Amino acid sequence: MDYQTFIQEQIAEIKREVGNGKAITATSGGVDSSVVAALAHRALGPQLKTIIVDNALMREGELQHVMQVFGDLGIPIELIDARSAFLKALRGLTDPEQKRQAITDTFYKDVFAAAARRAGARFLLHGTILTDIEETVAGIKRQHNILSQLGIDTEEAYGYKVIEPLKTLRKDGVREVAKLLALPDTISRRIPFPGPALAARVVGEVTEERLATVRAATAIVEQELADTGAFQYFAVLLNDCATGIREGRREFGQIVVVRCIDSLDAREATVRELPWGVLHRVAQRIVAIPGVNRCLYDLTPKPPATVEYI
Amino acid sequence: MDYQTFIQEQIAEIKREVGNGKAITATSGGVDSSVVAALAHRALGPQLKTIIVDNALMREGELQHVMQVFGDLGIPIELIDARSAFLKALRGLTDPEQKRQAITDTFYKDVFAAAARRAGARFLLHGTILTDIEETVAGIKRQHNILSQLGIDTEEAYGYKVIEPLKTLRKDGVREVAKLLALPDTISRRIPFPGPALAARVVGEVTEERLATVRAATAIVEQELADTGAFQYFAVLLNDCATGIREGRREFGQIVVVRCIDSLDAREATVRELPWGVLHRVAQRIVAIPGVNRCLYDLTPKPPATVEYI
Repeated sequence: MDYQTFIQEQIAEIKREVGNGKAITATSGGVDSSVVAALAHRALGPQLKTIIVDNALMREGELQHVMQVFGDLGIPIELIDARSAFLKALRGLTDPEQKRQAITDTFYKDVFAAAARRAGARFLLHGTILTDIEETVAGIKRQHNILSQLGIDTEEAYGYKVIEPLKTLRKDGVREVAKLLALPDTISRRIPFPGPALAARVVGEVTEERLATVRAATAIVEQELADTGAFQYFAVLLNDCATGIREGRREFGQIVVVRCIDSLDAREATVRELPWGVLHRVAQRIVAIPGVNRCLYDLTPKPPATVEYI
Repeated sequence: MDYQTFIQEQIAEIKREVGNGKAITATSGGVDSSVVAALAHRALGPQLKTIIVDNALMREGELQHVMQVFGDLGIPIELIDARSAFLKALRGLTDPEQKRQAITDTFYKDVFAAAARRAGARFLLHGTILTDIEETVAGIKRQHNILSQLGIDTEEAYGYKVIEPLKTLRKDGVREVAKLLALPDTISRRIPFPGPALAARVVGEVTEERLATVRAATAIVEQELADTGAFQYFAVLLNDCATGIREGRREFGQIVVVRCIDSLDAREATVRELPWGVLHRVAQRIVAIPGVNRCLYDLTPKPPATVEYI
């Protein structure tokens, strides 16, 4: 595909759709939502409001980093602190679908709808990609971000219309577009990170304490595996506990899973054969996190596993 | 230690303790309980009754194999089918301590006490080893088999007296004694297997269906890792589930952990660096078990993890 032409076409299309209206987009710092923000910024300039939502589910230092990058790009960005709204919506939920739904609803119906109203925006630009659509249609995943594909009338439901400029691309295409839009490597080459963010990495109830645990484990995995060049690597906090011994005494501790996969576009994935020295170091650091006493490595390709756990 | 002298001393001690009475011992086919049965058989001959209890928690083909071995050794052995008693006692329990306690109580108070009464036995010979005592005293593990060390008066509680001929040995010593007693390699070199058997390999509720799953996974791990010479290798069924895709459809599947460790005596353990070809093959076979879609490898040494999960 000629991605320069793609960019020009999408900019023209966004202009045509939005006309003289106002649009809003939210970025998480991921490549998909950042490319959409950059495209829309080029198309709409001051007609666009870009927000970043602190949903309490972000990784260590992530918010600060994304704010910095957008500042450097000259794209105005507004921070919305919605931590308590998300934590409250997730309280007591353990079912994966219910957790995803709570995050979707809090984001769209609550935080985003309010931001769109404040901005006077009727158009929402969203970073849906082709893989999201395919997997949702196939019933593999309930993607939180492709409302219209699911038959939800977003204009009626939330008061705005969704525009999805990347819905014909897969992840590799999005990365090419990101480079052409001069997004930095930390964005264009950022490893995939799910919409529900760290909530997707917590099996069982998502609490502040459990988020802190998986956040610490995620930071360790991302530091130790940054040089691998793998498609994706992350930590998952399980709900199960297991026995252990610390300072000679029995304890009942939490279990963290490390997953590191190779993939072209997340449709299929193979398990990275990490060197044992790396695996031992990651495990040693992870079981030093308070309350954690097991570290496991996921040996399962996709299929039959998905990349994520929930 | 001179193990021949140890054997003579223990045989003499068992004779002295039991006198003209009757004794009973139960074997699981493990090296500890088999050595005790063989020692007691030499000491007591027809004064000893040896039983094997089908507790519904045994591995694939295990019962048949142990019956065969004892037959070949000329030690009379009686099979007691107590599957329904154990499954009933375990129903609804998820707490590791409660599960262990239910198995202990069913075994000692119910099945074993009844067998001892039928045999007219006042003496129970048991395969407690030094590591069991140390870990229980240290509060690391509630061993089900060392009642007297825990201050339980077994004579009052269950109507018999416990004799523990191996309580000064560690696992390596027991293996030496097993060889000197001419026990076959399948016993003397059998990898350690916990008292609660497959119930120790099920996190969460122990049901017939979940036992069938972990039994299938255990058979795979034991087949594939038999040649490693590792100290211990096994499969654990977690209670958590994770998303997966099979034949293009989303599913929510069970998670099996594979653990393979090197150790001298189970007090400390390191993780075996298995070849990736072996790990991939094990994972591939395990996710073919109905209902299972993840296979994880445990990267945690002891400490801070214990060998087992519950």
